[in-house]
Amino acid sequence: MTASSTARPGSEGEPIEELAADITAAQGFLAAGGTCGLKASGRRDVGGVLSTRLASAAGVFTTNKVKAAPVLVSQELLARGRQAQGIVFNSGNANAATGAQGIEQARRMQALFAGGPARPYGAAAEQIFVASTGVIGVQLDMAKLERGIAALVLSREGGPAAVEAMMTTDTVPKVAAARFRLAPTPGASADEAAVVTVAGMAKGAAMIAPHMATMLAFIGTDAAVEPHYLDRALRAAVDESFNMIIIDGDMSTNDTTLLLANGAAWPAGREALDGTQPECAAFETALRRVCMRLAQAIARDGEGATKLIEVRIEGAASIEDARKVARSIAGSNLTKAAVLGADPNWGRIACAAGYAGAALDPDRFDIAIGDVLVVRGGLATGYDPHAASAAMQGKEVRLWMHLHLGDGAATAWGCDLTPEYVRLNSEYTT
Amino acid sequence: MTASSTARPGSEGEPIEELAADITAAQGFLAAGGTCGLKASGRRDVGGVLSTRLASAAGVFTTNKVKAAPVLVSQELLARGRQAQGIVFNSGNANAATGAQGIEQARRMQALFAGGPARPYGAAAEQIFVASTGVIGVQLDMAKLERGIAALVLSREGGPAAVEAMMTTDTVPKVAAARFRLAPTPGASADEAAVVTVAGMAKGAAMIAPHMATMLAFIGTDAAVEPHYLDRALRAAVDESFNMIIIDGDMSTNDTTLLLANGAAWPAGREALDGTQPECAAFETALRRVCMRLAQAIARDGEGATKLIEVRIEGAASIEDARKVARSIAGSNLTKAAVLGADPNWGRIACAAGYAGAALDPDRFDIAIGDVLVVRGGLATGYDPHAASAAMQGKEVRLWMHLHLGDGAATAWGCDLTPEYVRLNSEYTT
Repeated sequence: MTASSTARPGSEGEPIEELAADITAAQGFLAAGGTCGLKASGRRDVGGVLSTRLASAAGVFTTNKVKAAPVLVSQELLARGRQAQGIVFNSGNANAATGAQGIEQARRMQALFAGGPARPYGAAAEQIFVASTGVIGVQLDMAKLERGIAALVLSREGGPAAVEAMMTTDTVPKVAAARFRLAPTPGASADEAAVVTVAGMAKGAAMIAPHMATMLAFIGTDAAVEPHYLDRALRAAVDESFNMIIIDGDMSTNDTTLLLANGAAWPAGREALDGTQPECAAFETALRRVCMRLAQAIARDGEGATKLIEVRIEGAASIEDARKVARSIAGSNLTKAAVLGADPNWGRIACAAGYAGAALDPDRFDIAIGDVLVVRGGLATGYDPHAASAAMQGKEVRLWMHLHLGDGAATAWGCDLTPEYVRLNSEYTT
Repeated sequence: MTASSTARPGSEGEPIEELAADITAAQGFLAAGGTCGLKASGRRDVGGVLSTRLASAAGVFTTNKVKAAPVLVSQELLARGRQAQGIVFNSGNANAATGAQGIEQARRMQALFAGGPARPYGAAAEQIFVASTGVIGVQLDMAKLERGIAALVLSREGGPAAVEAMMTTDTVPKVAAARFRLAPTPGASADEAAVVTVAGMAKGAAMIAPHMATMLAFIGTDAAVEPHYLDRALRAAVDESFNMIIIDGDMSTNDTTLLLANGAAWPAGREALDGTQPECAAFETALRRVCMRLAQAIARDGEGATKLIEVRIEGAASIEDARKVARSIAGSNLTKAAVLGADPNWGRIACAAGYAGAALDPDRFDIAIGDVLVVRGGLATGYDPHAASAAMQGKEVRLWMHLHLGDGAATAWGCDLTPEYVRLNSEYTT
C-alpha cells in the first residue's frame, strides 16, 4: 500500500485519492495531544479532537459485557441524539471496571474538555465523546487529567500529538485519509465541485479481535451526512475492516470507533448525504478505505509481530461463513506460529477452517500460500515445500482458501505469534 | 493430586481408589507399542489395545468439519453397532486431509491389526477402532505401518510402550485408573463382591481446545455396561474433563476418546449396568475421575507450558454459561501470558469473561487469584499486589470468579503461554 494512490470507487467513477494524514486533513477538525503523567514513561497520554461546528455522529463499540465507563458515557451521548462536536481521550488507564466513580470521572473529562480547550468553539459537555485505553481496574488520577486536559491547545497542526496520545504498546502512529471530488449538481456553478475528505487515526496493537477490541479509531469527514445514514455507513465499513482484524482473540472493554461528519467542505444549499444520492458510493468507498488502512496498520503492529497475515476466503456458502473462516484462520495460534517460522503447514489452515463454525466440504477446498497452490479438492497438490515456505518469508503473507460452496468472500488480517508477544504480555502491569 | 487416594463417590458410599496405571489395569485388556519409522526421531509410533473379548463401545470425536480418516472409520464402526474389541493407532501422521486413499488406509490398519497381533483373540477387522495423530495432509507410509503393526506383541505388560506410541510433542506419558468394589447383590455369595476398574491413557499437548482437540484417549473398563448407557456416561464425563481443557484454542481433525467395557471383572449372572442400578453412581464417578486426571495431565503438558491454570466459575446463570466463561478465561492468550509472568492483571480475566457470550453483570462479579480476593462487586478490593503475584508463582495457578447470577458452576484447565510454545509451533514440520 502506498501513501497516496488513486482508484475508481465503482459505479460513480469518482477517483479516490488516498493520503497518509490524520483527522485534521478533513476541514473544520482540530486536534491536540499532551502529557499529564498517567503513563509512567512520560509519553503523551491525553488528547482531544474537536469539530469547529456541531457534527452528525456515529459510533461502534465493544460487544464485551464488561464495558469501560467512557464506552457507556459515549453510548449515552449517541442515545440522546446523533450529534457530537468532539472527543476527549486518554491512554495509560482504561477507566474500566471502575464502577460509578469511573462513570463520574468520564463525565468529568467531558466537562473539562468542553469548559477548557473546546470552550472557544461553543462545545457542550454532553456533546463530547470520551475514550480511554490502558490498564483495567484502576481509578483515573483526576488531578493529573484536569491539568492535562486544561493544557491542551487545539489546532490544525495538533494531529500528530493527538495520535501519539492515543498510543499504548503501539510502535507506530496510525493515520489514513481519503479524498474525492464532489461532482457538481446539474445546473449548479462549478465552485460546487468541492473536495470531500474522510480522515482518521487509530491505536491498537494487542487484544485485538473481531467485533471490536482494544482499539480506538477517531474518524472525521467534512461531508454533510444525515446521522442515520452515517451510522449505517460506519457499521458496514467496520464490518469489513476493524471487525476483520485479529491479533490474539481477546476482545477489550474499551473498543471504540467514532465518526463525526461536520459538513465543513459541503457546498451551501446541497442536501446532506442520506444514502440516496449517487455520491454516496464515493463516500462509502472513501470511508471503507480509511477504515481498512487503519485496521491493516493495527494488524501489522500486533504486539511483537513481525509479519502481516492476509487471509482471503472465497467460495463460502455466505459472506458470514467467509468471515468466520477468515477470522478463524487469522486467529489460530498454530497458524500464526507457523507463519513466524515460514512453515507451510497447511493442515493448520484446514484445521482452523474446520472449526470455524461455517459450512465446509473437506473434499472440495483449495488452499494457496502466496501464489503456491498447496491443496486442491482437500488434498495436497504435490507442491514444492521450499516454494511454499519462500511465500511465507516476507513481511506480508497471503493465505487463500476457496471452499467451492457458494459466492461468499471475505478478507481478514492478522499477524504472526512471536516470543516477543509473550514477553510483552507477561510483563504488562508489573 | 496423588497417585493413589480414596474418596466417597456420593450417595453410593463406595470408596474409589485412584491409581497411576494404564488401560491394562482393567481385566481383559492387552496393549502393545512399537516403532515403524513414521517418526523421524525413531521413537515409538505404532500401537494397539485389545480386549480379550468383544466389548460394549462408545466414542466421542472431534467436531471439526475436517475429520481425519481414522475418525470417519471409527464413527462408521459405532454407527454399525456399539461393540468393538480393540484400537489400532499410530503417531507421526494424522491421516487427515488424505481423501479416499486415507479412508482405505485406515481400513487397512484395521485389517492388519485384526489379522495380525489380534488374531489369536478372534477379533474382526470391523470391530477395531483406528486413531492417528501427527502431521496433516500427508499419506501414510503403509509399507512401514504394515511391518509395524505385524510386529506388535499384545500383552498385559504392553501398556507403557502403547502410551509412548501415542505421544507426539507430549513430554510425559498420561495414564489414570480408578477402582471400586462392587457391593454384593442381596442374597448373592460374597465372591460377587468384585473389584471393578476403569483405566485409561491419553496423549495431547497442543492444539487442545474445548469440544475435543488433538487428543487421543483410550479407556477400558472390566465392568459390564450396556452400550447406550456407556455412551451417555462417556459423554457426561468428557463434558466435564476433555471438553474443559484448552491449550491454544485450536481444535484438531483427529480428536478421539474411546471407551470399551468388556465385563471381564463382572460377576456371572449379574446384569450389566444400564443406568438404573445403584452402582452406576460409583461407575460414573470412576469414569469421570479417570477422564479428569487425563485431561489435567494434558493441560499441564501444554506445549512449552510451565504452569497448570485451573479456572473455577461459580454463580453463573447456568452450567453452560459457567463453562463458557471458564473456557474463555483459560483460553485467553493475555491471561495465559499474565500467568507466565505472575502478573495479577485481573482486568484480563474480567475482559475474557465479558466476551465469553455468557450472562454477566459487570457490577456484581468477584475474582480471586489463589486465595487473594482481588475484585468484589466488579471493583478492585485494594488487595496486596505482591500477595496476588505470589499466588501465581507456583506450578498450579487457581483463578476463581463468582458471577452472582445463579447456581451454574464449572471448572476449566489450561496452561500458561510461553515463548517455548511459539518456538515449538513455528518449527513443527520444517
